[in-house]
This record gives sequence, structure tokens and C-alpha cells, in this order.
Amino acid sequence: MAKDQKKQPRPKAETPKGFRDYFGADVTERKHMLDRIAEVYHRHGFDPLETSAVETVEALGKFLPDVDRPNAGVFAWQEEAVPGGGTGDWLALRYDLTAPLARVAAQFRNDLPSPYRRYAMGPVWRNEKPGPGRFRQFYQCDADTVGSASVAADAEVCAMLADALEAVGIARGDYIVRINNRKVLNGVLEAAQVREDQADDVLRTIDKFDKVGRDGVLALLTKGRKDDSGAFIDGVGLDEAQAAPVLAFLTSKGSDNAATLKNLRAAVGEAVIGREGVDELAQIADMLAAMGVGADRAVIDPSIVRGLGYYTGPVFEAELTFEILDEKGRKRQFGSVAGGGRYDGLVERFTGQKVPATGVSIGVDRLLAALRAKGLAGQTEQGPVVVTVMDRDRMADYQAMAAELRAAGIRAEIYLGNPKNFGNQLKYADKRGAPVAIIQGGDEADRGMVQVKDLVLGAKIAAEASHDEWKAQPAQTEVPRAELVAEVKRILG
Amino acid sequence: MAKDQKKQPRPKAETPKGFRDYFGADVTERKHMLDRIAEVYHRHGFDPLETSAVETVEALGKFLPDVDRPNAGVFAWQEEAVPGGGTGDWLALRYDLTAPLARVAAQFRNDLPSPYRRYAMGPVWRNEKPGPGRFRQFYQCDADTVGSASVAADAEVCAMLADALEAVGIARGDYIVRINNRKVLNGVLEAAQVREDQADDVLRTIDKFDKVGRDGVLALLTKGRKDDSGAFIDGVGLDEAQAAPVLAFLTSKGSDNAATLKNLRAAVGEAVIGREGVDELAQIADMLAAMGVGADRAVIDPSIVRGLGYYTGPVFEAELTFEILDEKGRKRQFGSVAGGGRYDGLVERFTGQKVPATGVSIGVDRLLAALRAKGLAGQTEQGPVVVTVMDRDRMADYQAMAAELRAAGIRAEIYLGNPKNFGNQLKYADKRGAPVAIIQGGDEADRGMVQVKDLVLGAKIAAEASHDEWKAQPAQTEVPRAELVAEVKRILG
Repeated sequence: MAKDQKKQPRPKAETPKGFRDYFGADVTERKHMLDRIAEVYHRHGFDPLETSAVETVEALGKFLPDVDRPNAGVFAWQEEAVPGGGTGDWLALRYDLTAPLARVAAQFRNDLPSPYRRYAMGPVWRNEKPGPGRFRQFYQCDADTVGSASVAADAEVCAMLADALEAVGIARGDYIVRINNRKVLNGVLEAAQVREDQADDVLRTIDKFDKVGRDGVLALLTKGRKDDSGAFIDGVGLDEAQAAPVLAFLTSKGSDNAATLKNLRAAVGEAVIGREGVDELAQIADMLAAMGVGADRAVIDPSIVRGLGYYTGPVFEAELTFEILDEKGRKRQFGSVAGGGRYDGLVERFTGQKVPATGVSIGVDRLLAALRAKGLAGQTEQGPVVVTVMDRDRMADYQAMAAELRAAGIRAEIYLGNPKNFGNQLKYADKRGAPVAIIQGGDEADRGMVQVKDLVLGAKIAAEASHDEWKAQPAQTEVPRAELVAEVKRILG
Repeated sequence: MAKDQKKQPRPKAETPKGFRDYFGADVTERKHMLDRIAEVYHRHGFDPLETSAVETVEALGKFLPDVDRPNAGVFAWQEEAVPGGGTGDWLALRYDLTAPLARVAAQFRNDLPSPYRRYAMGPVWRNEKPGPGRFRQFYQCDADTVGSASVAADAEVCAMLADALEAVGIARGDYIVRINNRKVLNGVLEAAQVREDQADDVLRTIDKFDKVGRDGVLALLTKGRKDDSGAFIDGVGLDEAQAAPVLAFLTSKGSDNAATLKNLRAAVGEAVIGREGVDELAQIADMLAAMGVGADRAVIDPSIVRGLGYYTGPVFEAELTFEILDEKGRKRQFGSVAGGGRYDGLVERFTGQKVPATGVSIGVDRLLAALRAKGLAGQTEQGPVVVTVMDRDRMADYQAMAAELRAAGIRAEIYLGNPKNFGNQLKYADKRGAPVAIIQGGDEADRGMVQVKDLVLGAKIAAEASHDEWKAQPAQTEVPRAELVAEVKRILG
């Protein structure tokens, strides 16, 4: 029997494809960042919400199961059929934090405060082809206000986003929250007399403004143009007079919000929805100023078009403006780390009633990468003090030392491996990033003494010192056992 | 088209069966508790590890897929087949935090420090029939040391568990960590000359000691007994001489560790494995004393038999000893909130090499329930100061007030609903648990004043005061706008 079992092939010890494990500082640095963000959200009156990872596919909505198995984007499975109860429900892992919010806002609409401000932080899952740096489980960090049609809610989210970025360490001047409004764009389309069947093409063209510039967009809106490869891209077919408001919209950013708003008013002309949109932006600008959020932190910027297709009112994006070196060593701006806006139909799917909502989502991995690039996270966390074991019969003595250090607030551990080879113990201390090693052999114990080894200084001496300096062993001190904690404290500073 | 869409049935807004959502204080209280525990684990040199929620069914091991769909305990699904690559892997949500640790310890064995101390906190999923208070997603909080055969690792985990319980607020005297050893039991079975085919039955009988007592166990080990219903339960078939060491083991708890160890030595007689087990317990007792963990916090207790079948060496369990009222109003001890022990074969499944490990798992929901029962959590968290809206054209003014309060560290929000009905705003403030409401109409604004309403005092007056006292409105004060923050601070104390 035992022999047969041994013949079974061993399972592979592998993280599933597209998933990853987070070790040590990976976990603590992200946690530290999210804790700072949560404090800001909480101070703004947002309450935490933690929904289950699992939802019914029906509630998630976006991805309905195909005939046999749903696999379009989500990880899904079918519940066992209940005896006599027909087929089982399809369940799936959430793919974002907004769909569960919609479900909760509908399910608990009689119990939740209205408007309902909530924040949520946690993993989401996407059943996508994994790629380099692209994982099938990743963190999201969202804050949304459900049930308020007031742009005060949008202004608040923008101000809160700026506060959150500063709370995690991004300096004022190193980020900017850019704000635009889908209604202004709708007004522009109206002013330009764009036909309904042309609207999508115009949106797609606007999205290319960054890449092809003003003249490129003009060509693409009208008669088309050759791209870099020489291929001809058909134009949308507007005439130049129609293209003018669109171009005016895209290039309306002025030297300050007042100038931008003036340009936008000109771009939307008489279009009612457009004027409403500009008025909203003007209100948001006033509110931000009242909240002490100046133009160095948040600004009206009509060039922000990302997401305009999805949102229904104000949209916003937080960009980090400092430069980093890309993988080819070229300087480039770090770019977007958060985005959001106003959306409808969130709860309507469930209840039939329109519930206005607005919110923001911070890209957790990108923001953490930014903090690391700026040296604001990712410093090697100091390891524990390692109490080495010279005499395995005196483990209790070594444990007493570690316990004393911990009681003084110092991270400390004893070496738990085979103590025979002392070199291995020092290698272990090195791997642990230990700043200090404690050593006490029988001889020191008899004399009531203990050796305290400053590993940071020791490494420095090993790298820099002459042979004589090294022999003097200034990094290792013998102190009375009763002074152990004081000596370690002295070394740790 | 639009009409057709409207005819589609609306999705149900429901948490999937057996899952739940956590709101506000549910989230923050658990987080606060886990943060305190993480600090203790960290100070002991344990590093955080966060594995993905998803594992291959092969790596999870315990639950292999049956022919069509695996459903024995886990939520599992099959990956899409890769074109030309055969069938897709079966993936599943982790059912505990130990199986992923085994996978990680094997996968990263060349990179991790050895021994490897890690802690993990997070949800796990069980595909079980949900019941009252029994959910299919719940939190676990584990700390394990992988790669150390030394009982110093077990002693450390026990001391750390005691520290963790105190860190979350359980007072010394309100808990006890009980420690036993599987090897002692093995020695007892050897001393009793129990045949291999009888061992399981003896273990099962030992597990009934709590219920049936000494005489009941004696009967069940020998000739059997009638249970309460009058049904006859067959005995294991030992003779009384054989049963004696087992009973000695179960009743060996003395007035202190020394007495207990002496009794255990007698119970195991000449059995080598049993003596080794008693020696280990003696060492653990010495180490705990050296770490300052006295008998009021951790104690050798042979009556802890839960888990003895699963573990291979020392086992431990933390019990809360204070009394609570159960659902029927009867006093009872709160009971177990954590358990653990030493286990083998963790990594062996993957690598073929034995890797000794020991660890503890805290029952997150149970410990949180205990804190609530003791009034150490679950106090209603104070809500935000609510700035009401008397004049919707002056939203920026109200936002400025909220921003000022927040800058002073006070949680504050403006009312974002329809401001027309002021009563609704006060109802909202009540639902939010707001301690203070800020009110400023046009009249106050013209005079540079603001009304500050102490809602806590107001509620007290409404409940207790006479009509005249109530009319005097002592809970509402008008202060100059510039003194808003100072006045709110005064009220909040």
C-alpha cells in the first residue's frame, strides 16, 4: 500500500499561470499604502464595504454564461443542482468592485444611508490571457458615492483623490487631477451637427488626439489621412466647419480654469447639454477652490478623453507628472494612476430606478510602482535581530533574550535551524536582513556576558576596511547580559 | 430595441447563498484586530505571505476532481484548453492557508530563509452547505514555521499566541493556552499494548472523555456501555490493565506543570516515543518560563485531545475562560479560539523530502465575537460630522466647512442628497451616527455665523428633558464662522 502511494506522481509546486504570490515587503508596502488611502477616505465620510469574492453571474451581468461554460472574462462555475430544485446557479469571481457595489446598493437600498459613500479595497479576478506584468488577480481600491446627482459629489471625489495621493507620499507638484465632462463633449457633437451614426467614429478619433495631434485629428474627422506605415485611414466625413467645434474642444485648455471654461463655452455654442456641462465644470472648479484644492492639484482639462465613452458626466484622471526612466533608459512621465467619473444605470439594472453615482478607482499596482520609483516605498525593510544558537541545550536562554528584545519593541527571533554550523546561522541572519546578531557561547554565559554583532557596520567594514581594521572587530562588542537590550537599542539608533 | 431590452427580466440583487457582505464597523473591527495580531507576529520575526486565492487542484491535493466536476469541498473549475495543448488545468479557490504554504515552501525552497516563519491572513472558501452562522467564505489567520524540528519553534508559537490574544485586548487570566503532545499519546498506546487495528478506536474513545468522563471512557475502552438513549455501544476490547495507561494519560493533569509531567512519565512507562514526548513537553515548559510565559497563560494539559489525530508532535489550543451567556441565557465558557501543532509531510508531497513544520491558526470570526462579547469591539463607531445644506447655491461654502474640519483631523462630510427637506438631512445625520450637525442658512451666512448642533446631547435632551428645557435648545449653539472648528472640537471632547 505505502509503496503504491509513493509511485503516484508528485504534484507540481507552481503558482497557477497568471497568478502570483506576494512575500514580505510586497505585502506590507501595499498594506501601508492602502491604510493611508483608507484613512483619507474615512475622514471624508466614506464607509468600508467588503463584499464576498463570489457573485452570481446574473448579478455581475456583464459576462453572461455561454451555452456550456461562461468563460468570457470571468472565472465562473456552476453550483451543484439542488435535489428537486432544478439546475444550480452560475457563480463567478468578481471582476471589479463596482459590479458588487451595484448589487449591494440595490439589495440593501432600504438600509443604507442615501447618498451612500463607500470605499472598497481588495482583489479582483479576470480570466484573461496572462502576460508579462499582467496578472489574473490584482488589487483595486475604489471610492464611490451612490445616490447623489450633485456635482458636489464629483468635486469631493476629486479633492479626496488629491488628498489620498499626498497621504501616500506623492508631493504636491508631482501629480495633477485632470477633470473633463462628457456633457461638454455631447454639446460639442451637437454643435458640430454630428449624426448619431458618426458619433462613435468621432469619439474614437478624439481618443487619438494625443498620438496624431490637431492636424491629424482634423484630417481623420474630415477626409482621412495616411498613417506612418503609409496606409490610408478613412476620415469620418465631417466638413471643416463641423470639425471646428471638436478641435476647439480638444484645444480649449487655457492658462487657468477661467480661460479654459471660456474656450469651452465657445466650443459648445448654443448646445444646451454642452452649456450644462460647462456650468458643471465651473461649479466643480469653484468647489475645489473652496476646499483649498488649487490649480496646482486639480485642473479642468478637456484633453482628458479616456473614459468619456463610458461615463455620463464629469470624468477625472490623476496623473503623476514626475519623470522616471523607462525600460530603455529614456525619461518619460509616470502617467495615470487613478481615474473615475459619473455613471448612470448602476442600480437601475436591478431595480428599474435610475440612481446617479460617481466614483474613483486607484490603480494599486501602478501607484505602488510609482512610490517605489520615487524611493517612497520599497526600501528594504529592516529584518529582525537574530539570536544565534551556540549551545542547543540552552535554547531557553536564547529565547529569553529574544523575548526581552521583543518586550522592548524590537523585532527579534532565535535561529531555529540546525545550529551545528555557525556559518549557516550568519548566512541565515544575512538572508533575513538582520541588523544585529546576538551570540553567547558557554564561555560568555559563564562570565554573564553576551556578544552583540552589528551586521550593518560589519558589512561596511568587510567592504571597505583594511585587514588590520577588520581584525580589530569593531562591529562586535561584548556586553554584560543585563545590558543586552540597551546595547541593541544603541546600535539600532 | 430599447423596448426589447426593457422586457428582459431584472437580475436579482442577492448575495450568493452562503456568502455575506461586511459593512463599516464589520470591516474596521476585524481589520483592527488582525493588525494587532500582525504586529505581534511581525515582532516575532514572522514575514507576511499573501498567496493567490486560486490554486491548481493538483497543488491543493486534498480534494481531487471526480470524473466531471470536482465538488468535494472546494469551488473548482476547469481552464479552457490551450489550442494544441491538451485539456485545461483544474483550478480551485483555496480552502485554507496551509495548503498554499506547502506549495510555496516547495516552490521557493531555494529562495526562502530556512527555517521560514510566515504569517497569512485572508479569506478561504469552502464549497459546503451553508447554514446559520456558517459561511462559504471566511477569514483565517495563520502563523507557521517551516523547516525546524526543534520544539523551540512550538514553544515560540505558543508564547506568540498568548501575546497575540493580549494584543487584541483579552486580559491575562481570561485565556489559557493548553499544550499536549501526540508522541505522549503514542507512548501511552504502546504502554497499553494497543494493537494497530485498535488505535483508531482508542483515539475516538479518548475524544469522548469530555462527554462521558473517566468511567465512561473505561467502559468504552473495555466492554462497552449503554449510552443515554439506552443503545449499547461496543467497547474496544482492551482489558483493564491496558486501559489503565490511557486513563492515567487523560487524568494526568496536576496542580502544576511539574506534577503533570510526572504523571505523564508514569503513564507512558518504558515506551521510548512516549518518553520523548514527555521530554519535549518539559522542554516547552522550560522555554515558556524563560520567555516570561507563566502557568497563568500557558500550561501542559493532557486533556487537550482535539487534533491529536492530525498532528505528529506538540499540539496546542487557546481557550477563552471567561463566561458569556449562550443563546438560551445560560452561562458558559467562551471556549476555543485558536489551535495548532506540529505536522509532517507538508512539503514532502511536492518534493519527496520531509520538512518539519509547526503552526497555529486563529479563528478570526470567533475571536472577534469574543471581543464583542467582552465589549472590546463592536462599540458603535462615531459617525462623521454632517454639514447640512440650507442653500444649494452655496455648496462650495459647505464644502469649505467640511474641508476645514477634515484638515483638523475631524471626520466630516456634506449632505449630498436633495436638500429641499431639512428633516431628511437630520434623519440622514442620525443614520450616519453623526455626533454633530452644522447648519448655516442665508441669514447666518450674512451675519458670518454658523449653527453647531450637538446631536448626542440633543438626543439625550429629547429623551429626558422637560418641554421648557427642550425649547431652550441647549444642544444648538451659534458661533462665528471662524470658530466652527474650535466649537466642533469642544463638543467632540
